[in-house]
Amino acid sequence: MILRCLQPRLALGRRAFSTTVSRREILDAESLPNRIIPTYQESQTSDLLSLQWPSPPRNILLVKKKHAPNVTESLIEFARHIHSNYDDVALIFEPKVAAQMHKHFSFPIYTSSTSHALSSKVDMTTTLGGDGTILHASSLFATTLHVPPILSFSMGSLGFLGEWKFEEYKRAFREVYMSGAGAGSPLLQDQKHPHVKEGAVTGWSSVRGKSMGPTRSSKVLLRNRLKVGVFDAAGQRVIGDDSSESAEGDVHAMNEVIIHRGKEAHLAIIDIYVGGRFLTEAVADGMIISTPTGSTAYSLSSGGSIIHPLVSSLLMTPICPRSLSFRPLILPANTPITLRLSEKNRGRELEVSIDGRRRSVGVGVGMEVRVNGEHISRGQAWVGGVPCVMRGTRAEDDDGWVGGLNGLLKFNYPFGEQ
Amino acid sequence: MILRCLQPRLALGRRAFSTTVSRREILDAESLPNRIIPTYQESQTSDLLSLQWPSPPRNILLVKKKHAPNVTESLIEFARHIHSNYDDVALIFEPKVAAQMHKHFSFPIYTSSTSHALSSKVDMTTTLGGDGTILHASSLFATTLHVPPILSFSMGSLGFLGEWKFEEYKRAFREVYMSGAGAGSPLLQDQKHPHVKEGAVTGWSSVRGKSMGPTRSSKVLLRNRLKVGVFDAAGQRVIGDDSSESAEGDVHAMNEVIIHRGKEAHLAIIDIYVGGRFLTEAVADGMIISTPTGSTAYSLSSGGSIIHPLVSSLLMTPICPRSLSFRPLILPANTPITLRLSEKNRGRELEVSIDGRRRSVGVGVGMEVRVNGEHISRGQAWVGGVPCVMRGTRAEDDDGWVGGLNGLLKFNYPFGEQ
Amino acid sequence: MILRCLQPRLALGRRAFSTTVSRREILDAESLPNRIIPTYQESQTSDLLSLQWPSPPRNILLVKKKHAPNVTESLIEFARHIHSNYDDVALIFEPKVAAQMHKHFSFPIYTSSTSHALSSKVDMTTTLGGDGTILHASSLFATTLHVPPILSFSMGSLGFLGEWKFEEYKRAFREVYMSGAGAGSPLLQDQKHPHVKEGAVTGWSSVRGKSMGPTRSSKVLLRNRLKVGVFDAAGQRVIGDDSSESAEGDVHAMNEVIIHRGKEAHLAIIDIYVGGRFLTEAVADGMIISTPTGSTAYSLSSGGSIIHPLVSSLLMTPICPRSLSFRPLILPANTPITLRLSEKNRGRELEVSIDGRRRSVGVGVGMEVRVNGEHISRGQAWVGGVPCVMRGTRAEDDDGWVGGLNGLLKFNYPFGEQ
Amino acid sequence: MILRCLQPRLALGRRAFSTTVSRREILDAESLPNRIIPTYQESQTSDLLSLQWPSPPRNILLVKKKHAPNVTESLIEFARHIHSNYDDVALIFEPKVAAQMHKHFSFPIYTSSTSHALSSKVDMTTTLGGDGTILHASSLFATTLHVPPILSFSMGSLGFLGEWKFEEYKRAFREVYMSGAGAGSPLLQDQKHPHVKEGAVTGWSSVRGKSMGPTRSSKVLLRNRLKVGVFDAAGQRVIGDDSSESAEGDVHAMNEVIIHRGKEAHLAIIDIYVGGRFLTEAVADGMIISTPTGSTAYSLSSGGSIIHPLVSSLLMTPICPRSLSFRPLILPANTPITLRLSEKNRGRELEVSIDGRRRSVGVGVGMEVRVNGEHISRGQAWVGGVPCVMRGTRAEDDDGWVGGLNGLLKFNYPFGEQ
Ligand SMILES: NC(=O)C1=CN([C@@H]2O[C@H](COP(=O)(O)OP(=O)(O)OC[C@H]3O[C@@H](n4cnc5c(N)ncnc54)[C@H](O)[C@@H]3O)[C@@H](O)[C@H]2O)C=CC1
Ligand SMILES: NC(=O)C1=CN([C@@H]2O[C@H](COP(=O)(O)OP(=O)(O)OC[C@H]3O[C@@H](n4cnc5c(N)ncnc54)[C@H](O)[C@@H]3O)[C@@H](O)[C@H]2O)C=CC1
Ligand SMILES: NC(=O)C1=CN([C@@H]2O[C@H](COP(=O)(O)OP(=O)(O)OC[C@H]3O[C@@H](n4cnc5c(N)ncnc54)[C@H](O)[C@@H]3O)[C@@H](O)[C@H]2O)C=CC1
Ligand SMILES: NC(=O)C1=CN([C@@H]2O[C@H](COP(=O)(O)OP(=O)(O)OC[C@H]3O[C@@H](n4cnc5c(N)ncnc54)[C@H](O)[C@@H]3O)[C@@H](O)[C@H]2O)C=CC1
Repeated sequence: MILRCLQPRLALGRRAFSTTVSRREILDAESLPNRIIPTYQESQTSDLLSLQWPSPPRNILLVKKKHAPNVTESLIEFARHIHSNYDDVALIFEPKVAAQMHKHFSFPIYTSSTSHALSSKVDMTTTLGGDGTILHASSLFATTLHVPPILSFSMGSLGFLGEWKFEEYKRAFREVYMSGAGAGSPLLQDQKHPHVKEGAVTGWSSVRGKSMGPTRSSKVLLRNRLKVGVFDAAGQRVIGDDSSESAEGDVHAMNEVIIHRGKEAHLAIIDIYVGGRFLTEAVADGMIISTPTGSTAYSLSSGGSIIHPLVSSLLMTPICPRSLSFRPLILPANTPITLRLSEKNRGRELEVSIDGRRRSVGVGVGMEVRVNGEHISRGQAWVGGVPCVMRGTRAEDDDGWVGGLNGLLKFNYPFGEQ
Repeated sequence: MILRCLQPRLALGRRAFSTTVSRREILDAESLPNRIIPTYQESQTSDLLSLQWPSPPRNILLVKKKHAPNVTESLIEFARHIHSNYDDVALIFEPKVAAQMHKHFSFPIYTSSTSHALSSKVDMTTTLGGDGTILHASSLFATTLHVPPILSFSMGSLGFLGEWKFEEYKRAFREVYMSGAGAGSPLLQDQKHPHVKEGAVTGWSSVRGKSMGPTRSSKVLLRNRLKVGVFDAAGQRVIGDDSSESAEGDVHAMNEVIIHRGKEAHLAIIDIYVGGRFLTEAVADGMIISTPTGSTAYSLSSGGSIIHPLVSSLLMTPICPRSLSFRPLILPANTPITLRLSEKNRGRELEVSIDGRRRSVGVGVGMEVRVNGEHISRGQAWVGGVPCVMRGTRAEDDDGWVGGLNGLLKFNYPFGEQ
Repeated sequence: MILRCLQPRLALGRRAFSTTVSRREILDAESLPNRIIPTYQESQTSDLLSLQWPSPPRNILLVKKKHAPNVTESLIEFARHIHSNYDDVALIFEPKVAAQMHKHFSFPIYTSSTSHALSSKVDMTTTLGGDGTILHASSLFATTLHVPPILSFSMGSLGFLGEWKFEEYKRAFREVYMSGAGAGSPLLQDQKHPHVKEGAVTGWSSVRGKSMGPTRSSKVLLRNRLKVGVFDAAGQRVIGDDSSESAEGDVHAMNEVIIHRGKEAHLAIIDIYVGGRFLTEAVADGMIISTPTGSTAYSLSSGGSIIHPLVSSLLMTPICPRSLSFRPLILPANTPITLRLSEKNRGRELEVSIDGRRRSVGVGVGMEVRVNGEHISRGQAWVGGVPCVMRGTRAEDDDGWVGGLNGLLKFNYPFGEQ
Repeated sequence: MILRCLQPRLALGRRAFSTTVSRREILDAESLPNRIIPTYQESQTSDLLSLQWPSPPRNILLVKKKHAPNVTESLIEFARHIHSNYDDVALIFEPKVAAQMHKHFSFPIYTSSTSHALSSKVDMTTTLGGDGTILHASSLFATTLHVPPILSFSMGSLGFLGEWKFEEYKRAFREVYMSGAGAGSPLLQDQKHPHVKEGAVTGWSSVRGKSMGPTRSSKVLLRNRLKVGVFDAAGQRVIGDDSSESAEGDVHAMNEVIIHRGKEAHLAIIDIYVGGRFLTEAVADGMIISTPTGSTAYSLSSGGSIIHPLVSSLLMTPICPRSLSFRPLILPANTPITLRLSEKNRGRELEVSIDGRRRSVGVGVGMEVRVNGEHISRGQAWVGGVPCVMRGTRAEDDDGWVGGLNGLLKFNYPFGEQ
């Protein structure tokens, strides 16, 4: 692998000053420079967007699957590779992971316990794990409009959201890191733009100088999210004990929000309003409001259709409705939906889960879950959505969706021996 | 109403001795004579069975819906009617209901806290409530092979299992009480059969004498049950804290047994064995094993077909399976089915519910729920099943099933304004 | 009704010259002035568009349900009303209908047998019938990008596409006719714009002068269509014998295109390509590619989800697929889809239907049905789609969709007696 | 293979007289001795029946898939093997097949064009082909109560009904041929029973003499059929032009009877009666009434559940019903079902298909398709059903159903790469 031969390299930049004393240290991510917000360009040959960094990313968040020793090893390998090959790149970990990992590194790592710090510092997220790890990474930015791009590596079997195999990590990271550093980028002519430290050689030129071919920019699928708020019978916002929930605004979901009877043996009764109008009273195990991304998750198990992630829409899929005629509905993404616990539930509490995580506080009679598609504004500076870096080896216009249906979901799997 | 004119009547029989002293008393049902087991005859015009009492029923269990004041009033009205019009009939209530009700009666009532006493004393059960009340009544005999016939009155809207409207209670009770007392019954000639107290006028002749037409016998639908046992990883039977569960044998379900993730946010993984052979690994919210009776309950909500209660079979319906190809299965009633918690669940506990009641003890990894259709032996003395008294006003050969599909389930409800 | 009092009126304009000689005549629609193309404005309070005529519509196409005598009577009533109350309005009928109807009218009517004439002359279409009549009316413009707005009256029971009850016809027609003639419209100040005959009083001022309130503009739902082309194994376009099919371009469907085994007793085998990539081999009765509008038609019967007409998308729903795992798919509207008859069909021919009309020529092995969502370009001059005039009595922001689900489709119809 | 060493053998019996003159001849099956009707015994270890020939089968019908050259070759090989190794066995073919094949044989073969002859002569049927071939073989006995046992070989991929791979043909045929010839069978002691030609050595002893192990009897799955009759509006039975339909009685179906709109583009309207009661008006592509065997055929594609063939029942599955609430129903096998073409179809004709074969004559308004489960009478002499010889290598109590679900239908096929 070519990148290896960059070694030994000169440890330049800010890390040079800390090598001897602060090795194995965990630093506060607040001390890092503010994040760089990339732009996303539409292309003619593909429905995917093209990632453009105004300057090389520097603060990389590394998220890993829990309780999985083999993933920990891969994470160490990955982190060492980044540290060794990319100048100026700082690695950020979640607090528990940082505590567990830092002894393995001969260089300082960063962490932060506030979602605010992550939102303001992280240039890009890398996940090692499965779909659940990606959902978790996305949840770290559940109250942010500018989610940093996510580069996801699947450990073990490929998930439906996960894009890259871990074996590809060197090429994958380089591709994303370099994305937008192509010819014509003003940055490469003028190194002194505000984001770049005075006098520094950008990571791009150091990496690019090493006789590598022209850089393709990474393709990004901007996955729509849902905005979810929980309100009590008096219309006041209810906050769970979850750090990702803020008093001011909604939480964002990447797959879905679910309301469910949980361990109650009895049916839940939920009044549903669509666009402000009463739609129906659902008597069911629960209700799912899902993104198109989530259409291959719980909604699929509950009988929902499979929706391409680029169809701007919301799915309303009932879970075991006590009705013969409750067919899943698909609504425009901007339709406000309210799920209200009917008085008929007589004091029972239902559970609310977002992307597979149960909210600590259930909802009682009269309480409402209000859902809305996140507005994504287009243009150079796209706002909203979760930018997922897609696999680079596919044909220019392939978003991998057809492949996932067949390879992972066994869509229309043929009858007969094979 | 004709029966009213039977009044004033002479209070004869055992109750005569207790009027003054034991009014408002709650007596132990153990003191009642042993139950009378009816026979069921097949008929040529109908798939329903015909109820035949060898002598008039005497010990009537009255079960009512909980937390429903209007039902309590109806229960009082109903109990007083029975007491006033039927000699020798003793009324049994569940302990809490007895405690709550006895002050309303000027005659003693009976109760028992052991399922054994109920099984050995109750001639017939009457329910006032909805389907849930019938399920509950049936659960009182969950370990018995000879479930007494159930006469069910719906309070409010008609349920799918409930048969009679409460307004019909006088005619309904009389019809069941008299069932089998028709011409040619040897009992009426010979009053001194073993079940009848020496010298007593049977309830039948006293009621029959009052110029009422010839008696039709009541039609009974014998609903198949499931036998359910829970076993630990070592193959030992696990008992819940439920009085209806016995150490020796299986519990019977009228609708279904369910295994479910409950409040766990993650998918359950269940290994399924059918007839001793491994069928599949279900990754799902849960699994339902249902009777045909239960096919219109939870199984229906989960996408199962509707099965006529006389099709001797078991349904296996997954709840939100993470698969595109898990279609509901219907198996012969005698197929043993085992649901085993896979090791992959990693320490999670699943919930087990029988007929909508959660077992207090969940099942952990390696534990098994073993299910089997109850064997019903035919002949004069049918054994097994829950004998449900069907509505008498229908045509001779009508089991009410088609009516229920249309009237209650809104089966194939037509499109368009009406 | 106020409009009635406009009578007696002076027969002005072009019809004045033909009154004596050409009554009961059928004239060629080619002689009519060219059509007026309305604009559609987006509003903030509603997802519906607002219809704006630059000048009053003059050429109205009247389409009626076939084989329905009661509809014929209503059509006569409707036509007489328009003729009596709206100056300058010419009525166009399909040839057979014109031949059948003209004896009922004391004024000339118009017809045309070419779809080209309809596309260039018709300002607006009115349908009397059911959903099938609307589909038929839409099919008359199957090769046009600028479909004139459709005002649809349901005869008998309300359909899902039909919007107005026939009883409302006077108000409905007036509302559409006047739409855009509101205050601030330059036309009302300056009567001499190019579309208006020199010296004529426009219909608007004559109608408006009669003390009616301010005009609301009609709300229009622009329904997405599909473009469908059939190609032989050599890639040449195949034309049916249908006048609506042209040699140059695609036919547009409002509901769906279907490929089906027809009367063949055997399964059809269809290779499906999505976005140029092979998706799957369907072994089935057939395949449906549907618009969101068509999601409540055949696709619904085949198990598809219900999609709001404003979700820009295509549905791919299999008809009785021989597979457990062929779930309906929903794709972005601009995804090209190809259905190709596999060689495995061994010489069988399949049938192709568009909006419920069977194409005269079936498709054989190697032939392809190519489908694509119609591109709708936004802005003042929307191009593409079928503009359907929505009912005016609803709340400003109500598109009637929720009402249709509940009122017509009996969505989530509750269990139990009512 | 052991059987080969039986060669050379003495050509005894009736064929000895015809060898020189009648080689390559096609003889009339009427000249064969009457068929031998086997008995079927219930066993304790299995739900399958055990086949018992009172004397060795002699008249074997060979049915092959059409238009499949490789099957023709296998048929020749198979026929030669039977002729060479089994004394007294005559081979019967369908007329067209006989004409096509007889030149390949050095011995006479038999044929018959009447279904009567087949019913009275055939001891056992062997099929070479797929499920369609088995359905066709079964249709040759569509009016018979005593269908001869069917031994089916799949050519190419295994079907769901087909049991044996062609490679196994020698062992399979021998097993069926010998079935019931076990120790203790009185027949083997006394060769002179009525069915056996005077003085002849039975095939059994000649085969058995050759040092083969003790014979297991073949296991038979008795598949329930449907009885189907078509009646005109006046209640008169309507006969298609199909030789399998008789004027007197019903036709039997092994999979299902279907009523379908065929090439009509419009929905069919069908009134459904169950047990004499009006159930519902189906507005749909069509209706399926299926056996449990057919539950994995068309009914499965239409959303029906999968039913084990031993659940005595009928399935009613709608094909694309225009309703949200038409769930598949499962009824007791003895429920009479009537499908009646509603007057609302206005002169349209629907198509009726039995086991995938379209009846030549469609059904018009007012006509009825009447369906009933075939009554199977138990006991030594089972009457009714199609006896299918099951694969012998499975465990004693394995009916192969679970294996078929997983291996052929890809039931609950797991997600993810493998
Ligand atoms: N998502 C669902 O559909 C769920 C269904 N259930 C069902 O509820 C049953 C327990 O009933 P309840 O105690 O009343 O609980 P519940 O208060 O949750 O009501 C269950 C509903 O099911 C109806 N029902 C019960 N048995 C039926 C049957 N055999 N056929 C048709 N309808 C039936 C009842 O009338 C009631 O409307 C369970 O046996 C289970 O079948 C329980 C939980 C969830
Ligand atoms: N019955 C069901 O199908 C249930 C599904 N879930 C889903 O699980 C998700 C949470 O995932 P985990 O934390 O991994 O929980 P988990 O351990 O329960 O696994 C959920 C499974 O869903 C897959 N998955 C997640 N998102 C997906 C997507 N968008 N498309 C396709 N597959 C996807 C995962 O790879 C995993 O196999 C929830 O958002 C919910 O959608 C949760 C509970 C029950
Ligand atoms: N959309 C659908 O699923 C349709 C299904 N069919 C079925 O095809 C049957 C006729 O079979 P062919 O003549 O071979 O026609 P065919 O050539 O159309 O093939 C039907 C397929 O169904 C399979 N099949 C037949 N009976 C089966 C059973 N009982 N269980 C599982 N698979 C079965 C066959 O192996 C074959 O793959 C009909 O009885 C009907 O059930 C017929 C038309 C459409
Ligand atoms: N099995 C089924 O559900 C079938 C459905 N169709 C549908 O019928 C349509 C043609 O309609 P007609 O000429 O009236 O044929 P038709 O006389 O067969 O009636 C079709 C029914 O579908 C309704 N319908 C049509 N378009 C609709 C829509 N977009 N949403 C909701 N309901 C709708 C009509 O009101 C009518 O009740 C086709 O485009 C196709 O979608 C056609 C054949 C079979």
